[in-house]
Parts: sequence; structure tokens; C-alpha cells
Amino acid sequence: MAVRVQDVVDALEERRADEASPNGADRLLFGDASAEVTGIAVTFMATLEVLEQAHAFGANLVISHEGVFYSHHHVLPVQEEEPVYHAKLEAITSLGLAVYRYHDGVHRQGIDGIMEGLVQALGWEGFVESHEPAAAVVSLPPCTVGELAEHVKRRLGLGMLRAVGNPAMTCSRVGLLVGYRGGGGLAIPLFERHRLDAVIYGEGPEWETPEYVRDAAHAGQAKALLVLGHAESEQPGMRLLADRLADRFPSVPVHFVPVAPVFTLL
Amino acid sequence: MAVRVQDVVDALEERRADEASPNGADRLLFGDASAEVTGIAVTFMATLEVLEQAHAFGANLVISHEGVFYSHHHVLPVQEEEPVYHAKLEAITSLGLAVYRYHDGVHRQGIDGIMEGLVQALGWEGFVESHEPAAAVVSLPPCTVGELAEHVKRRLGLGMLRAVGNPAMTCSRVGLLVGYRGGGGLAIPLFERHRLDAVIYGEGPEWETPEYVRDAAHAGQAKALLVLGHAESEQPGMRLLADRLADRFPSVPVHFVPVAPVFTLL
Repeated sequence: MAVRVQDVVDALEERRADEASPNGADRLLFGDASAEVTGIAVTFMATLEVLEQAHAFGANLVISHEGVFYSHHHVLPVQEEEPVYHAKLEAITSLGLAVYRYHDGVHRQGIDGIMEGLVQALGWEGFVESHEPAAAVVSLPPCTVGELAEHVKRRLGLGMLRAVGNPAMTCSRVGLLVGYRGGGGLAIPLFERHRLDAVIYGEGPEWETPEYVRDAAHAGQAKALLVLGHAESEQPGMRLLADRLADRFPSVPVHFVPVAPVFTLL
Repeated sequence: MAVRVQDVVDALEERRADEASPNGADRLLFGDASAEVTGIAVTFMATLEVLEQAHAFGANLVISHEGVFYSHHHVLPVQEEEPVYHAKLEAITSLGLAVYRYHDGVHRQGIDGIMEGLVQALGWEGFVESHEPAAAVVSLPPCTVGELAEHVKRRLGLGMLRAVGNPAMTCSRVGLLVGYRGGGGLAIPLFERHRLDAVIYGEGPEWETPEYVRDAAHAGQAKALLVLGHAESEQPGMRLLADRLADRFPSVPVHFVPVAPVFTLL
């Protein structure tokens, strides 16, 4: 039996908690809900390259964690004729793609599905001490911050991490925050509440948590921070989602399409 | 005649535009407005180390662009007894420091004083085409993005920059945005409005402007982005402020206290 775009959307939305989310970001941004799905491409962000790759894989439904037009609330800061927007809209239309934004739902699962994917990718399922609404706490065999960074880079396939604190410091209790949850209001209290040695987050404002950790280190209170990058912290969760969708819709090819780190170093 | 803390505050606040700013961030966070100023330390952010350095220089008034406690609105996410906060409060008290946050005022000068400092530090005073409220546009002799990055690193004393786009691309028209002005709502329209080849900003959300530039490059519309870091983009403006305060209060030693980049790479 044919799988329609709406069938996949329904499957994603039933994962949500019961509370309605009228201001949520999740929705079918482009495409026809009644179209038959030839393949699903799951990604952190539907970049132009990802859209082309999805089409090349034979997929006509793209499930993107972040928005298509560089804004959480899908607000365009420019006219649709702006050349980059135009090129992207043109690609979506000419390739016949449906694009569903799946952000709030996956974060709102019993255990945040994005966090779950990161914990699995790091191989830390056996070390999780607690899941908070916006963070997880893991209790690892003691290692240095430098060793921790090497483990994270190897497991996530990253060339580098941004870090604060002394790489020679020993750490065991680590807080994890995915995406843009690195702000001081979330990450700073976590250190004290869970007696953390280190925090690993995706993205956050530079002079909040990083400066807190720098001050802590200067005050002789050993703390450290590793910053993964937003995409780098959330991609594993979208990869996990792709696996689950493949189980749910065995007749439809499901592809996880990774994005490379957006920054290079010069 | 003795210079009091309030005299310096008055000098800073008279630089403001006329409109009142009841929700502004600028205020005397710690210390006594009637105390005699033995020296002024000007910095991007009053880290614990900066506070100690200020004291070592004989300064008892610290002028900090960003807040002391890792939050723009000076809201503490933890109790004051939290060890890092406690160590910092203790240092401020025991070193007898006054700390004035000077953020909104310096950005609100006729030409944003932080922008002015960055333009001077880059040696681009002769290339400014226009000043917008939150950005400047410079028209430079054509060079590659790689050469532009080398110039910026050399002039600002930075070991590395984060970049998006092709380093071999030629650029001439460049937009500058200091601090946390790299968001898509500000930076993306700037590209089109001023036909920019490249944007250089301090800090911004990772999947907004950077992903726009990546898509543009993929669509064959040559664009590039250099990300300085928040502190790295604003320190030169605070250095300029220190020079101006030294002229204004010739009897008081004025020190600019730089902060090192908060991140290292692992």
C-alpha cells in the first residue's frame, strides 16, 4: 500500500506529548500531503546540497530538524526573489520535494530523541545517571578533558572541538545539552546541581557559560566545557530518527543525509 | 582635583543619544559612586582574571562592556553562594573595586564606538562606504577571502577565524557586524542590500547566516563569511574607549585590559 506524506507526518506527530503546541515549529513547509512517498531523506538541516542529494537518492520527502530559510520561525528577512532564497525555492519545486520540519516533536519525546541519539553515538547509554528536560547527566570512568575530547571527536567524526578549561583536568561527571541549549541560564546551574566536572553542549552565547567556566578555572574550581557545534550535536539524533522511520515504513527507502560542519578554520 | 567614580560615569553617559533607556544594561554594578578613582581598567568583560589585573595596575574602577555574571540582564541563574559567583563577588569586594557596565551607551554613539574601534583596528577608516545602525559597509581593494582572513587575523592578533565559503573567492564589498549581530535577520538582508561579497561578524546563531552563505556558495552565488568571536569583535572598541577616557581624565591612569580568546581548540 502506498505511503503518503501525511502518513509519515502522522507517525512523527503521534510521538509528541499530549499538550498542543500552536506555536511549534513542526509543519509541512513545502509539498503535498497526499503525494506518494518514493523515499525519505532525514537531515539536520535541508541545505541546498541536502535537497539535491535527497533527490539523487530518489527521495521526495525531506525531514529536516531545522528550518529551510535560516530562521527558527520560518520568517524571511528578505524578499522571496533574493537570489539564494530563489535558488532554494526553485530547487524544492523543480525536484518535486515535500519538506517537513521536525524539531519540537523529537525534542519532546519521553526522552528527547535528539539527546538519545547523541548519547548512543557517544556510546554512553550505560553511563546515563539522569535525564532532565533539557539535559542529560552521565557519570563516566574518570579521564582527562583531553581524553574526553578525543573520544567525542572520534565517535562523532569531528576534526576539532572548541574547549574551555584545562585539558589535563580529570573529569567524570558530565552534563550534555544538545542544540542551542548552552546558554548560561540552562548550563550554569547544571554544574552545581549535579556537581559536574564538565559540560558538553551544541551551541550557546559565547560570554555566558564559556566565561563562567573560564572564571571557575581561574578560581581553582576545576571545570571544563566542550562545544560541539549545533549541527554536530543534533545530527546523531536525526540519524536515530531515520533508523526508526525505516523500521516504521519498511516499504520506503529511508536515507540519513549528513551535513558537513558549516565552518572551516582559516 | 579628585576624580570620583560618578564623574567617569557621567562622562560615559553624556555620550548617549538623548532618548532615555530605562531597560538599558548600563549601570554601576558594584562599588561606591563617590569613591575617588585611583585608576580605570577598561575591558570587554570583567573576568576574574581581569579584576585581579585591574587591581594589580592600581585601578579601582573597572569599565566592562559585558556583564560580570554571564548574563546580559544581570540575572543570576544560581544562588550567590554558588562557588564561582562567590569567588567573583569576593574578589570585587576584597579588592575594593567599582564595576560599571558600559554596553548600550557605546553602541549608541553617533557612530557606534565599538564599530569605530574595530574599523580602526582593521585599518579600514579610509574604506568605509556607509554606517548603518547595526553594521558598517566597507569597500576594499579586491583580494581573496583567504587574504582577507589573513589581514583580519594579523591586525586583531588572532590565531584563527571560523569561515564559510571559498577562500579563493575574490571579495571587495564587506559588511561588518560587531558582537552578537550575526543573526540572519540582520546579516542576511545586508548581503543583498549592499551587494556584499563577504560579511565579518562577531557572533551569531550557527544555522542562520552561516547556512545561508553555504547555500549561496552551493548555488554558485559567491559569498563568504568570517566569524571573529564576540570578544574578538568588540575588544578593539573598548581599547578605543580607554584611549578616549585617558584624554578626558589626564590625571587618572587608564589601562585597557584585554581578554584572551575564551576557546581553545582540541
